[in-house]
Amino acid sequence: MAPIIRDARTEDWPRIWPFWHWIAAAGETIAWDPDTESEQAERIWMAQPPVRVFVAEEGGRIVGSAQLRPNYGPISRVANATFLVDPECGGRGLGRRLAQHVLDAARGHGYRAMVFNAVVETNVGAVHLYHSMGFRTLATVPRAFDHPRLGPVGMHVMHLEL
Amino acid sequence: MAPIIRDARTEDWPRIWPFWHWIAAAGETIAWDPDTESEQAERIWMAQPPVRVFVAEEGGRIVGSAQLRPNYGPISRVANATFLVDPECGGRGLGRRLAQHVLDAARGHGYRAMVFNAVVETNVGAVHLYHSMGFRTLATVPRAFDHPRLGPVGMHVMHLEL
Repeated sequence: MAPIIRDARTEDWPRIWPFWHWIAAAGETIAWDPDTESEQAERIWMAQPPVRVFVAEEGGRIVGSAQLRPNYGPISRVANATFLVDPECGGRGLGRRLAQHVLDAARGHGYRAMVFNAVVETNVGAVHLYHSMGFRTLATVPRAFDHPRLGPVGMHVMHLEL
Repeated sequence: MAPIIRDARTEDWPRIWPFWHWIAAAGETIAWDPDTESEQAERIWMAQPPVRVFVAEEGGRIVGSAQLRPNYGPISRVANATFLVDPECGGRGLGRRLAQHVLDAARGHGYRAMVFNAVVETNVGAVHLYHSMGFRTLATVPRAFDHPRLGPVGMHVMHLEL
């Protein structure tokens, strides 16, 4: 069954939190505090406009979520986004569907480009996905992320004109 | 008289707001909303730990302020910072003094590097200052900032190992 992607609602949080927590605790892709509690994570993730939050829902289950926001300040016309996929639902193209949805939403908001400031270089699935969607790596910030197994690794700045 | 640089206190805000507002309204260096009201600006600027906020005080007057924060999420060991100098007090090396203080504080916190994600390329004073302190431009995000007179201009990603 293809997922439905829609705006997140407040009541979705308890179904986002399990994989939000899993991703924070794994610490391999995002510099969130692994000890973040649900309430604080909710404040971080379920943000107010101009931030938009989406969920991917599949058979009544929330299997992914994404945040779209202005990158450089509230009036920036360059967007930034974060994508989360429930690790139990990986490898099924959910990240790509979420990303396509968010890119379309960004175009609809009049953003001129999307820039990721911090794609962990060892997160090869994400790097490959973004390249396949047309993103270009502008630079790699050396040793910018502490990978729990690999130590300090680089983070890519990636750019796509919309 | 040399400025004293110290941690900001809640009661400093009314003396920061005039130049915060001036810089937001000018819209030439930071993508803040020019219509931001004082209360909202205070929430943005006078942030809680792990963010640190500094002021430069000179003869009882606050002439500059700076924010130091983790760049990529609460546990990031790469720092980010923003510097504000009262435009009436420009050209006197205040930016450099603030930046030196903040770099020292960043070292003290154990940050491994400082990265600016978004230095407006036409803000040549800042670009020159950062270069003179050892920062290197890793990339320039094209057309990433809407300058009120010059239109879309690039933003530099700048990096310094600490």
